[in-house]
Amino acid sequence: MASSSSLSPPKVPKELYFINREKVLNSLRQHLTETSRPLHGFVLLQGGEEQTRYCTDHLELFRQESYFAYLFGVREPGFYGAIDIATGKSILFAPRLPPDYAVWLGKIKPLSYFQEKYMVNMVYYTDEIVGVLQGHYKEPGKPLLFLLHGLNTDSNNFSKPAQFEFETELNTLHPILSECRVFKSDHELALIQFANDISSEAHVEVMKKTRVGMKEYQMESMFLHHTYMYGGCRHCSYTCICATGENSAVLHYGHAAAPNDRTFEDGDMALLDMGAEYQFYGSDITCSFPVNGKFTSDQSLIYNAVLKAHNAVINAMKPGVCWVDMHKLAEKIILESLKKGGVMVGNVDEMMAARLGAVFMPHGLGHFLGIDTHDPGGYPKGTERSKEPGLKSLRTVRELQERMVITVEPGCYFIDALLVPAMENESTSKFFNHEVIGRFKDFGGVRIESDVLVTANGSKNMTSVPREISDIEAIMAGAPWPSNKTAPSNS
Amino acid sequence: MASSSSLSPPKVPKELYFINREKVLNSLRQHLTETSRPLHGFVLLQGGEEQTRYCTDHLELFRQESYFAYLFGVREPGFYGAIDIATGKSILFAPRLPPDYAVWLGKIKPLSYFQEKYMVNMVYYTDEIVGVLQGHYKEPGKPLLFLLHGLNTDSNNFSKPAQFEFETELNTLHPILSECRVFKSDHELALIQFANDISSEAHVEVMKKTRVGMKEYQMESMFLHHTYMYGGCRHCSYTCICATGENSAVLHYGHAAAPNDRTFEDGDMALLDMGAEYQFYGSDITCSFPVNGKFTSDQSLIYNAVLKAHNAVINAMKPGVCWVDMHKLAEKIILESLKKGGVMVGNVDEMMAARLGAVFMPHGLGHFLGIDTHDPGGYPKGTERSKEPGLKSLRTVRELQERMVITVEPGCYFIDALLVPAMENESTSKFFNHEVIGRFKDFGGVRIESDVLVTANGSKNMTSVPREISDIEAIMAGAPWPSNKTAPSNS
Repeated sequence: MASSSSLSPPKVPKELYFINREKVLNSLRQHLTETSRPLHGFVLLQGGEEQTRYCTDHLELFRQESYFAYLFGVREPGFYGAIDIATGKSILFAPRLPPDYAVWLGKIKPLSYFQEKYMVNMVYYTDEIVGVLQGHYKEPGKPLLFLLHGLNTDSNNFSKPAQFEFETELNTLHPILSECRVFKSDHELALIQFANDISSEAHVEVMKKTRVGMKEYQMESMFLHHTYMYGGCRHCSYTCICATGENSAVLHYGHAAAPNDRTFEDGDMALLDMGAEYQFYGSDITCSFPVNGKFTSDQSLIYNAVLKAHNAVINAMKPGVCWVDMHKLAEKIILESLKKGGVMVGNVDEMMAARLGAVFMPHGLGHFLGIDTHDPGGYPKGTERSKEPGLKSLRTVRELQERMVITVEPGCYFIDALLVPAMENESTSKFFNHEVIGRFKDFGGVRIESDVLVTANGSKNMTSVPREISDIEAIMAGAPWPSNKTAPSNS
Repeated sequence: MASSSSLSPPKVPKELYFINREKVLNSLRQHLTETSRPLHGFVLLQGGEEQTRYCTDHLELFRQESYFAYLFGVREPGFYGAIDIATGKSILFAPRLPPDYAVWLGKIKPLSYFQEKYMVNMVYYTDEIVGVLQGHYKEPGKPLLFLLHGLNTDSNNFSKPAQFEFETELNTLHPILSECRVFKSDHELALIQFANDISSEAHVEVMKKTRVGMKEYQMESMFLHHTYMYGGCRHCSYTCICATGENSAVLHYGHAAAPNDRTFEDGDMALLDMGAEYQFYGSDITCSFPVNGKFTSDQSLIYNAVLKAHNAVINAMKPGVCWVDMHKLAEKIILESLKKGGVMVGNVDEMMAARLGAVFMPHGLGHFLGIDTHDPGGYPKGTERSKEPGLKSLRTVRELQERMVITVEPGCYFIDALLVPAMENESTSKFFNHEVIGRFKDFGGVRIESDVLVTANGSKNMTSVPREISDIEAIMAGAPWPSNKTAPSNS
C-alpha cells in the first residue's frame, strides 16, 4: 500500500514574527530603562546570504539565519531588518535585484509585497539603509545601532554583526534576543507541534517499512520523503542519523564520513535520530528498535532502561526543576536498570559518584529546541558549564520554566573508547560485570528522544511515536498506529 | 503499487582516481617539458572542509570540493593531497582527529585505511605536510608546489590555493586540471551513466504519479526519494527545478525565494529539471509535460518545436562540430516551428540576425557535465565569450571532441521581461503575431534536456526518458516504460 498522511501543512500566521519583535522590543526597552539608557536607536540585523560551493556556481539551498528568521521570518536571501526602538516600527531592507533576475530567478517583487508578507511597517532597499535610519532618527547626531554579537555556547562561534558606520553597541542585543527565543509563543508552539506530528508519523512509516537487508540510508530516504511529500518540510533540523548495529554507538553518526551506508542485518538494533523542520521551526526525535521487529531479551533490557529514564524525566519535569538534576535522574535510572539486568554490580550511588553514568550516556540529556535544533539561551550570564564527564556535554544547566521546549533524550551505549578505560580503571573496574558486558560488544546503543514543552504545572510531550516494546513490535508486524488501546500522548 | 527499481548502485572502481591522477600527471609533465622546466615539485590540493550554519553548531552535510574529488575521491573533510611530479607517487594527508571523535563521530581509522580505500601510495597527517614534502624532495632547496588557482568561468569565482611556505606556482595547474576534467574516462562515464539511469527512472516515476492539485515540491520529493532509496544518491547535482504554469518561464526556479511551492492546476505545463549525483558524478535532465497528462494543441506546438531542436542537435553532434553552431541550429529550428505554428511571421534568417532566438531561449544550449553540474573547461585560453543575447550565456564555445559530456537543453519560454520589449521594438515588432502570442501569456515554457556523450563518430544520449508526446501521454495514462514499441535510446 502506498504511503499517505492524515496531516496537512498549516499556514504560518503573519503575527508570529510581529509578536517575536514586540517581545524583543519590550525586553530591550525594559533593559535600557533599568540601565538608565535612552529609549532610542535601532535594532539592526543582517539576514543570511546565498552561498556557492567552493569556486563553482553551484548554489547551496539557502536557509535563513536563525535570529533573523525569528524576528522577520524572511525566506529570501540578502535582506537586512531593523526595529526603531523609539517608535517600535519595523523596517525591512530588500536587495535591489538586477533586471535579468526576472529571466533567471523569477518576478521581481515590489517592496509592498514584502511589507504585506512579513507584516512590517516599511520596506526599503538595502542600499538605502544609512539614509533611512538617519531619516527616521529623531534625536540629534547619528543613530545608535544595537547589533547582534555574541557567543553560541554550542558551537563556540560568534554571531556576525551587521557592519555600519554609525555608532554601534555589541553587548546588549544578543543576550536579550537569545533569552526571548527560549520561551515559545503559542504560534511558535503550533509550528514545532506540526514538525513533531509529521516527523512522528514519518518515524512510524519507517518502522513499518524496515526490513532486514536494507541500507541505512533507505530509512533516511523514507523519512525525508514522508516529511517533504506530506508535510512540505524541505529542510531537516539536522542530518539524519540512521545507525544500525555497532554504528548506533556513534552519537552523531550519519555525516559525510559515516554516511548511513551500512547494510543492516538480522539481529541489529536501529537508532534513528531524525527530525523535520517546518517553516524554520524544528523537531528532534529518536526511535530505537530491532530491525527484524522482535526485541531479544538483551535488547529489551537496554531499551527499557532508557525508556524508564525517558518517562521518569518527563514525569518529573515542571517549572523550577533543575535540568542537571534531570540528567542525573536519567543516569541513575539507567545504572539501576543495568544493575538489575546483571550488567553492573554494586552500589548505584557510588557508581554515580564515580561518574559511571557518563560511560553509558556521554552526551547531555537534552537541549532547547526551536529555530535551531540546539536553540540558544542554554548558558545565560551567571551560569557555568560543568567540567565533569557527561555533565560537561549538557547544553543547558538552567531551571525549567514554562514555555521552554527541550529535548529529553536519554541513551545507553556500549562505546569501547569509554567502556574499556572504565573497566580497566582500578577504582571503577569492580562495578562492571565483565562477562555480561562481553555480550554487548557489538550491541551499539539505544537512544529515545522526545520534544517536551514545559507547562505551568508539568510538561507535555509533543512527540507521538510508539515507545512501549509491545507497541513497536505490533506496528512492525503490521498493526495500525495510533493503536486502539494507546492513544498518542498529545492527541 | 509501491515504487521499485530495476537498478542498483554500482561499486566505484578504485582505479578511477588513480587514472585521473595519471592523466593530470602526464599532462603536467608534458607541459613542463614543452616549456623547458624541470620535472619536479608537487601538485598540492586542499580538500574541502565541513561548514557550520552561521554561528550555530548546525553542520551542513559535507560535499567534497570537485577538483579534490576528481584527483582523490575522498569523501571525508579536512584532507590535503599531493602528487610527486618526479616519481608520480600520490600522498594523502588526513586530519589528526581528537580522541573523543570516536565517541561522537565514529571509529578513528588508521592511515592504512585511507591508503587502501583511495589507492594512494602514502598517507600522513596534515600536520606533517611540510616535513613529508621536504623529505620526499630529492633536489636541493625547497620543493616547488603547483597549486590550484584559477577562474571558474561560470561563477567568476577563483578556486582557493592551499597555503604553504614553500615556493608556489599558481598559473600552471588550473588550466591543465580543468582540461583533463573535460574528457571523461570509461570509469567516469559509467558513473555519469548510472546517475542518468536512476534519474531517468525517477523522472518517469514522477510523471506517472503527477496529479492535478499536487504541490510542485511533491514532484521534487518523489524524485529525491527514488534516486536516494534505489540509487543511493544522497546529493543532487543542483536544487530541483519543479516549475508549473507560468513558473516554467523562470529558468532557475526552485531556489529558496521561489521554492517549488505552487499548487498546480488542470491545463498547466510542468517543467522538471532534476538530476541526481552518484559518487560525485552528476546528471542533469529536464522533462516537460502537461500535468493532466494530455497535451493541448498549443502545448504540442511548443513542445514539438523544442523536441525537434533537441533531436536535431543530438543528430548533428560529432567531433569537430562547433557548439555555437549547435546553439544557433536549435534557435533556428525553434523559430521555424514558431513560424509554422503562426506565432512568428516573416523570414527566419532575418529573425536570427535580429537575435530573436534569444527572446525565446535566453540561456545557452548546454554545458559540460561531470563532477560539477557546470563542469569546468568551457572557456580555455584563447576562447572568448560572445556579447550577443543568448550566445553570451553559453558555458562553452568549443568544438566538440570525443569523450566530452555535454547537456543538450533547448527551451522555448514566454518571458514578459524579454518578449514585451522585443514586441514593442520598432525593428523586431513585425516578426511577432501579437494576437497569437496573447494565447501564450501564462504558458510558461518548455525545456527538454538530455546528457550527451560525444563519441568518435557522433554522439550517444545517456538520458533515457520518454520524449515523444504519444509516449508521455501513454505513460501518464498508465502504460509501462520502457514501452514495447520504443526501446530507450541507450539500452
